[in-house]
Parts: sequence; structure tokens; C-alpha cells
Amino acid sequence: MSEAAQTLEGWYSLHDFRSMDWTAWKLISSDERQSAIHEFHAYLDKVNQAQEAEAGSHALYTIVGQKADFMLMILRPTMEELNELENEFNKLKIAEFTIPTYSYVSVVELSNYLPAGEDPYENPQIRARLYPALPKANHVCFYPMDKRRQGEDNWYMLPMEDRRSMMRDHGMIGRQYAGKVKQIITGSVGFDDYEWGVTLFADDVLQFKKLIYEMRFDEVSARFGEFGTFFVGNLLKEEKISQFLHVN
Amino acid sequence: MSEAAQTLEGWYSLHDFRSMDWTAWKLISSDERQSAIHEFHAYLDKVNQAQEAEAGSHALYTIVGQKADFMLMILRPTMEELNELENEFNKLKIAEFTIPTYSYVSVVELSNYLPAGEDPYENPQIRARLYPALPKANHVCFYPMDKRRQGEDNWYMLPMEDRRSMMRDHGMIGRQYAGKVKQIITGSVGFDDYEWGVTLFADDVLQFKKLIYEMRFDEVSARFGEFGTFFVGNLLKEEKISQFLHVN
Amino acid sequence: MSEAAQTLEGWYSLHDFRSMDWTAWKLISSDERQSAIHEFHAYLDKVNQAQEAEAGSHALYTIVGQKADFMLMILRPTMEELNELENEFNKLKIAEFTIPTYSYVSVVELSNYLPAGEDPYENPQIRARLYPALPKANHVCFYPMDKRRQGEDNWYMLPMEDRRSMMRDHGMIGRQYAGKVKQIITGSVGFDDYEWGVTLFADDVLQFKKLIYEMRFDEVSARFGEFGTFFVGNLLKEEKISQFLHVN
Amino acid sequence: MSEAAQTLEGWYSLHDFRSMDWTAWKLISSDERQSAIHEFHAYLDKVNQAQEAEAGSHALYTIVGQKADFMLMILRPTMEELNELENEFNKLKIAEFTIPTYSYVSVVELSNYLPAGEDPYENPQIRARLYPALPKANHVCFYPMDKRRQGEDNWYMLPMEDRRSMMRDHGMIGRQYAGKVKQIITGSVGFDDYEWGVTLFADDVLQFKKLIYEMRFDEVSARFGEFGTFFVGNLLKEEKISQFLHVN
Amino acid sequence: MSEAAQTLEGWYSLHDFRSMDWTAWKLISSDERQSAIHEFHAYLDKVNQAQEAEAGSHALYTIVGQKADFMLMILRPTMEELNELENEFNKLKIAEFTIPTYSYVSVVELSNYLPAGEDPYENPQIRARLYPALPKANHVCFYPMDKRRQGEDNWYMLPMEDRRSMMRDHGMIGRQYAGKVKQIITGSVGFDDYEWGVTLFADDVLQFKKLIYEMRFDEVSARFGEFGTFFVGNLLKEEKISQFLHVN
Repeated sequence: MSEAAQTLEGWYSLHDFRSMDWTAWKLISSDERQSAIHEFHAYLDKVNQAQEAEAGSHALYTIVGQKADFMLMILRPTMEELNELENEFNKLKIAEFTIPTYSYVSVVELSNYLPAGEDPYENPQIRARLYPALPKANHVCFYPMDKRRQGEDNWYMLPMEDRRSMMRDHGMIGRQYAGKVKQIITGSVGFDDYEWGVTLFADDVLQFKKLIYEMRFDEVSARFGEFGTFFVGNLLKEEKISQFLHVN
Repeated sequence: MSEAAQTLEGWYSLHDFRSMDWTAWKLISSDERQSAIHEFHAYLDKVNQAQEAEAGSHALYTIVGQKADFMLMILRPTMEELNELENEFNKLKIAEFTIPTYSYVSVVELSNYLPAGEDPYENPQIRARLYPALPKANHVCFYPMDKRRQGEDNWYMLPMEDRRSMMRDHGMIGRQYAGKVKQIITGSVGFDDYEWGVTLFADDVLQFKKLIYEMRFDEVSARFGEFGTFFVGNLLKEEKISQFLHVN
Repeated sequence: MSEAAQTLEGWYSLHDFRSMDWTAWKLISSDERQSAIHEFHAYLDKVNQAQEAEAGSHALYTIVGQKADFMLMILRPTMEELNELENEFNKLKIAEFTIPTYSYVSVVELSNYLPAGEDPYENPQIRARLYPALPKANHVCFYPMDKRRQGEDNWYMLPMEDRRSMMRDHGMIGRQYAGKVKQIITGSVGFDDYEWGVTLFADDVLQFKKLIYEMRFDEVSARFGEFGTFFVGNLLKEEKISQFLHVN
Repeated sequence: MSEAAQTLEGWYSLHDFRSMDWTAWKLISSDERQSAIHEFHAYLDKVNQAQEAEAGSHALYTIVGQKADFMLMILRPTMEELNELENEFNKLKIAEFTIPTYSYVSVVELSNYLPAGEDPYENPQIRARLYPALPKANHVCFYPMDKRRQGEDNWYMLPMEDRRSMMRDHGMIGRQYAGKVKQIITGSVGFDDYEWGVTLFADDVLQFKKLIYEMRFDEVSARFGEFGTFFVGNLLKEEKISQFLHVN
Repeated sequence: MSEAAQTLEGWYSLHDFRSMDWTAWKLISSDERQSAIHEFHAYLDKVNQAQEAEAGSHALYTIVGQKADFMLMILRPTMEELNELENEFNKLKIAEFTIPTYSYVSVVELSNYLPAGEDPYENPQIRARLYPALPKANHVCFYPMDKRRQGEDNWYMLPMEDRRSMMRDHGMIGRQYAGKVKQIITGSVGFDDYEWGVTLFADDVLQFKKLIYEMRFDEVSARFGEFGTFFVGNLLKEEKISQFLHVN
């Protein structure tokens, strides 16, 4: 029996992807649309207040291509709060004009392939990574992933030392992108269909491609990475929501 | 030919996952919604009475993310009763505002990788596990699974002794979570698309992730586990149904 | 080149799985529903007459879970008759309130892994199996399956003698369930997506699980079985149709 | 690098599978239905004229089971003509009552695993196979397929001589069905999701099963065949269209 | 750790596939259709102007078969512009009568398996390939693809030299089609579900089949190519849009 790495968990996370039903949205009156947008802003004001109080964080991005029109990613201390915010969104007027296309449930996770030490939950740097304020980067990239368990390529049958060493090399690549790409790893074993979600933030969208492509030649990804669907998007600033939703 | 382990079976089980059609739900009058909620409570009263009479059990949870808004899990002594309760639910007013998203048909199962002994169906502890009262834990986790049959990793070609030994180790991990996670295994060979359903209950949702992740390094899961889709949710107490279904 | 086993074929078979659109069904008047049920009974009377004339057979079962609400399985001497009955059903009033969820096209098949002999189509016992009267058992189980062709586990590359010997062992398990489970094998090579359909009938639904689970440890299933989706259901007697379709 | 076999190409092909929306079809008046059927016949008259002029060919079959209600297969000298006929069909009144369920784009193809010789496009027998008049057989069978590229079973890594020899054996089986089954192979590399489409015509539907099952034991199919979805159907003569579309 | 090849990136790309909802399109008045077509032309005028200014490029093709009725492929210098054009299209009147069926997000990419040299972004020939004016060829072919990572066939575990050599051979085949097929490779690691998109343009549609089939015998494709769905289509000239959209 191979030994499981210890993990640290922070805030619970919901990625919620939606497409707009533009035809139905155009069918209602301009006043009704304004009212729906106003109500949506009130919802965002509420989550903004939680963010200022460091009681959670969130990010709103438009998504390129037909997979979704936008993504709202929300972090909260409990699964209950996450679920309540989801249900609250579902009852908004604007939600009547959205089509759910994908979602992902997970929890911010740090792996301890790093050397052990003091109580990590007391370490401010670690706390900042477990309970992160999501950045307002120009672009987001999200994908879920598994570690492969297939024939000779079975991550979970490897000795801990091999896994640790491979993850160290893997981390080195990531570190070369420090300042260019911010990475949030969320664990989803028991919560959703893959084992992890990867959310990347960058001002230069090309850095997502460069980072992930370079990593793909790394043994951890090359032999053991199984990837789900990929989403890429652009920051949707709150002051641009009206424009994004504007129709004639 | 490898020898099949003997199994014990208890109540039949239906997991029924549904999303709400909130747009349609808002379209009817407040009175109609109250009436639909009232009728749903009457349905739950009926299944509660069966539960008190130990003629079955059930659990109602909201589900996080877009896979479903809620899950109703029902246990009954016969497939016919299960089907009747399903059809009865389908004919409720509230059902008109739900969209079926997933279901799972199975039967509570205990494996006899444990040493043989007296007639197990007479053993009160075993009976309590075959005909369980589902707990009112804060959280639920459900996923279906298969034992892999692929190249060198073919569970069903292993000698019984190897399977028994691996399952024993596997059970040891589970036992470490006693008091934290309650596990109901249901067999679904011949009833649904995977061989088993796993339903976990816990007050601390993080225990699902810790338990399943730790088990994944165990040979039974690492080499032989094939997992379906995962659902995670929060207890929906009956007194909270009106609030859950409340719309303006 | 490996030698193909000879097969005997009987009646053509259509399994037709449907869900009810209960919301639409409730929207029409009670009189319209009665009229639709009456027309459906007339359709069943017609297929009953064919059954009495030994010109075909059929079975009607409700299905547990969201995969379907009911299944109508029909056997007929020609593909044309099958298609006509399907189209006739599609034009019934009741069909407007059903949603097709799955179907399977195949032909009753006996394999000749058994020793050769006289003209099998003249043998009354074989005829009874090729042109069977479907039983009115309490329960049905249906699943499609393939023989695997993957790396070392390639059924179609095995010598005939090995296949014959494995099928003999396989048949032995089935024989232990004689009187408990009636099995109809239908071949679907060239007709549908899997190579065979398996339809099981039993009064005790648990026998499906026991039989299939036991067989899974048999080399034919363990190494060579690829299974599609599983359906399980309860006999829907004609006199219970009105009750099944009754809504307020 | 393995050498690609040369191929000969003839007419472009579209298989178009549709289900009827019987509920909507019943909702319009009998006159509107007659008018839609009349317009459909005019469309068929047009393609019949092209067939008589040897400027293409087509076949119309009902399909058994829920995968489709009918299939229209069209052959034309250019991809543009094919697309125009498709768009023309899409704009017919009858098309408003059909639901597209599957389609396949390919081109009639002959492989040159046969010995080389004169200019094949001048050979009348080869021309007859490249620009075929589709037969009015009682039954049709269609499926798409790939040659496998997986581990040791990689068709495209085999020496040309091995492929040629295996295809020769494969062709021998087909030849035994001469007069019983007519086979049209269409290539779809670059046009659709599989590498080939196989369309079989036979008066006795059982011959599809016998031919494909026998071939499955042949190394080309056993080790290298990857099959898509299978459709089987019955000839829909033009004079039977009104009856097929008749509703009360 | 295997070394990643360097890549050059140019314009961002969106392939947007849509089907027409002909039934709804017929329901509106001829004037409304004219107005929608007029608005669509205005949109195309705008992207034409960008093309003339070398600030992007685009291509409009009808697609054969049910996968889509047309494809609009757009190239732009930033992901933001791409997203804006997508949203602008989504808000057009014509978009209300389209059903999104597939999309692909990527960026024009050149691999540097070629020998290194001067700053490639200053090289006019390379610039012409990174910021291409899409040709008005008669036909288009699009498919996404991955390099395989499976057991012994793991592209990302190969030494750079082996990959370089195989890609060189691969390129040789492509070069034989110079003048017949124009190929645009777009990278999509981090942007969409496959690693690359391949868009081919040709006046003779058969050249797609010949090129891809010949390449399939090349080790890069035979052992390492994993292909997604294939689309093939015909040029839709702007002056033919009215005809394409004409209904009675």
C-alpha cells in the first residue's frame, strides 16, 4: 500500500459556467432587463462585501467559444454557504436567461509534498494560499484533472518518494511562471468527477499555453496527467456587465 | 474460474437526482407553489411513517453544483415499492418543476469477505446494516463504481484469497473513519450501469475527501477502482424545504 | 483466421424504452386520457392476438429509475412487422406523451457451441427457444453486451475450442439458475451497437444480481465481457395500466 | 514509414438519418400534411431524374428502433451538389417535422489492395462500382468504422504486404455473400469522424448479421476493426410514403 | 524530463459552428428575414474591413451533414477581440435562428522543429504564416487533435530528437500537397479540449482525404495521433448568403 500525501484544505469552491439565452433576453422589455441587471449587481455587491471582509472571494469572467458565455467562481468557508449562494443566483431574474453548461465543486488544496514543519494553518503565507483573494487578472483558464491509474502508468501505485520527486520537478516549471501566472489548485476527490481543478490567472493569455505545454513534457503530466475540458476567458469587470448584457 | 464472494442483501435503493426548473416555478402563483409544497410534505410524511415503522428509510439532500438541485434517496423492502414511490413522486405537482438529472438503482449489500459464521440474517448487527435508518448527517456523498477488468488489472480474475486480503486492508482504512463517515454500500450488478453505489454520510464534508483520497492509494482502489460521477450535498431538513423552494 | 460459431436465429426483437411526459399528460382532459388509454389497450389486444396465434410475443414492464418509465419488448417473424408495430405505436395518442429513451434491435439467437446433430429448426425444443412466448415473470433485466477485442483479451482471436470450452463453463452457471431466471439471448451484430442483447426474467429480482455477479468471475465475462447499460423493471399487467397512468 | 494503399474515389455520399416529430405532424391539418408529402414527392422526383440520368443515386429506407425513423442516402459527383440537396431538403415543409439524428459524409471508395493494371477509371466494371446505382433491396445496414491504432494492434504500422494479405482474406468472406449482400464502401478520412462508412443492401436481413459476424473472426476485424453505431432498416418505396406518414 | 519544443504564436482563432433553425426562420416574415440578412452583411462588412486592414482574417463555409449548417472562423490579435466578435454575433438577429453545435478556441502556431535562426517574428515569411489571410478556397476541413500519451505510445516521453525527426518526415508529406492544400495549425493547449486544431483549405475536396490518409501511415499519426471530430464544407461567398438563407 502506497502512502497518501497529506493535504491542507482552505475555502470551498464552486465554478459555475453559464451561457446566455440571448433570444429570450431580447424578448423582455428594456426595463425588465435593467431590473434584472440591477438585481445581479446587488448580488455581486453582497459577495463583494464578503470579499472585503475576507469571508470569501469570487471571480467573474466571460468565456470564449460556445462552452459558456461567462463563469462565476466563488470561494466560501463552508459547503453550505457555497450552496446558498448558488441557489440565490439560481433564483435571480438574470438566471432565467442563462443555461447552465458546466460546474465544478472543490476545495482549495495545498499538497504537502513540501517538507513538514510547524502547524501550517498558523503560517500566514500558507493561510494566504488557502484563503486566497482571487486576482483581477485579464484572463482565466480552468480545467479539471486526474492522476492516471492505467497499466504501468499508475500514479497511486508509485512509492511516495517517487511522487514527491516528480512533483518537485513539476513545481519547478510552475515557479518559472511566477509573476506571470497565478495558480489555484482545488481538490475535488469525493466532490466532483475529477480529482483536482486547476484555475490559472494571467494578464497575458499566452502564458497559459506556454505553461501547460511545457508541463506536458514533464513526467507527471506526460505519463500521469488525465485532463478534462478546458475553459479560457476574459475578465468581466462589474462596470462592463451592462455592456456585456446590452442588446437592442 | 475465480470464485464469487457471497453477499448479503437488504433493502432496495433508489437515488433520485433532480434539478429545479426555477423559471417555470416562478411562473405559477404563490398559492399554487404553496399547494405543491404542501403536497410534497404529505408525500414526505408518508415516507416518514414508513421509516418510523422500520419499513424503509430515506434521505433528502440539496446537491452542490449544476449536476442537481436535490437528491432523494429511498430504501424499501421490494423493487415494486421503490417503483411505486418513484411513480408517486413523478405525479406530484412539484415534479412538474423538476428535471431528472441522474438516478441509481441498487440494493443494500454486505460482502462476506468476513469469516463465515451463524446465519447472518439473524444477526441484529448485520440486520441493522442491511435495513439501515439513514442518518441525518450534515452532508452526503454519492458515487457509483466498478471493479476494473483491464489487462493485468482484472479484479475478477484474481484468486479469492487475494481479493479477500485486499478488501481487508481496504476495510481498515474505512474503520479509521468510524464515527466520522457512515458508509452504505449498495450492489447494482444487473440493476444499473456500475457494480456498486457508495453513499457516504458525514457531519464534516472534508472527511469524504480525506477518506476517498486515502483509499485511492490502496491497491483495491489504485489498481481496481473505476469511478462514475460524484455528487456532494447538504442535508435538506423538512422544515427548510419551504425556504429552499421560496422564490419572489 | 479463427472460425465463427454457427448460430440459429428465430424471431426479430425490438426493446422500446420510454419515459412519460407526466406534465403534458396531466394537461389534457381526463376524457382525452381515457381515450388514449383505450387506444393503447386496443393496440395491446392486437399484439395479444398475435401472441395467441404464436405469430410473435411481447412483454410490458415498468422500469425503475430515470432511464425509462416503461419498456415494451416485441418479437416478430420479420423486421418489417417489427418496424410496422413500432410505427403504429409511435402514432398512438399515448405516444405523444412518451419520450423515447433507448431501444434495441436484435434477433433471438441460439449459439451452436453445443454438439451438432439433426436439423435444429425441426427440433421442437429448439423451436420453443427460437420463437419463445415471453414469460409473465415479476421482473425483467435487460442489457446489451460485446465480447471484448482488446490486447491480450481478444475473444475473436481465440481458437474455437477455447471459446467452446469457456462458453460451456459459462452455461453451467446459467443452468444453476434454471427455474429461477429465464434468459433470452438476442444477437444484434449488424442490427444495433452491441453484439448481443440479454433479457432476463425472474420472479425474484435478486436472482438477476446473483446470476450476473457469479458469472462475472467466469473467464468469459471477467476477461471478455463488455457491458452496456442495464435496465431493471417490474411486470406491468394490462389491468394495471390505467392505475400506472392515473393522474389527478 | 508504412506505405499508404492507393484508393479510387467515385461519388460523394451523404447518409441523412431523421426521426419524425409525430406529435407536431398530427397538429397540422390533413391538407397541410398532403401538401408537405406532395412537396417531398417533388423533391424525390427531382433526385429520381438525376438517377435516371446517371448523375447520382439515392436510397430511402425506414430505420428500425429509436435511432431514426428513416434514412435518405444520396450520392452525387461533387460535395457542392450534396450540400445543395441537403439544404434543399432542410427547407422542405416535411423537414419541419423531422429531427436530425445522425449523418455521415463520405465518398465511394475502392481500395487498390488488388493488383495494379490499366487506368482503373476507364474500366467499366470499376466505374460501375465508383458511380453505383443504389439497389432497391429490401433492407439496408449502415455503420462507420476505423482501423485500430492501439498498442500492438496498430493497422497503420503494419507493412503493406501484411495489410494486403489480410484484406485479401477479408474480401474472400465478402465474396461468399455475393448475390446475397451488396456492399458499398465509402471513405471518410477528412470528411467525417470514422475512416469508412459501410452500407450493405440485402433482401434477407439476416445476411447482414451472418456476414458481419463471420468477418468479426477475421484478423482484420478481430484485431483492427473499431465500429461506430449500427443502423438497420427496410426499403421505403415511394408509393408507401403516404402510408408511412399517415396519421389520424 | 523531455524538452518542450519552442513554438511561435500569431493570431487567436475561433471556429464557430452553427446549425440553422429553419422552422423558426420560416416563421418570421420575409421582411424580417431580409432585415436579419442585412444586419449579418453589416457584421461581415465590418470584419472584411478588419481583414483589409490586416487586423485579422475570417472565413465562412457551409458544412456538409448534420454537424452544422455553416462555420465562421475568425482570427484576431487578442482573445478580447475574438470574444467581442463572438458576443456581437450572438446578439445579431440571425443568431436567434442558429443553434451552436461546436466551437474551437486556439491560436495560430508554428512549431520550431525547424532549425533555429534569426528572430522569427521579424521574418516576413513567418509573419505571413502567423498572421495569415485565410484563403477563399472552395473547401474547408477542420479537426482538433492530440498527441497520444498511452503506454508505449507516449509522445511527450520521447526524446526531442526523435520527435523532431518524426515531425520532419511528417512535414515532407505535407509539402507534397503544396499548392493543393493550405494548412493552418492552431495551438489550443490551455484554450480548448485538444492540443491543436487543424484547418485545411483546398479547391479539390478530395485532397483532404488523400493528405490525411497518407499521413495516417506516418508514425507521428499512426502511433501518436488522436483525432477529434471532423468537419468538411464548401465556401459560402457573401453574394450567396441570401440564396443560402432563402426560404419560401
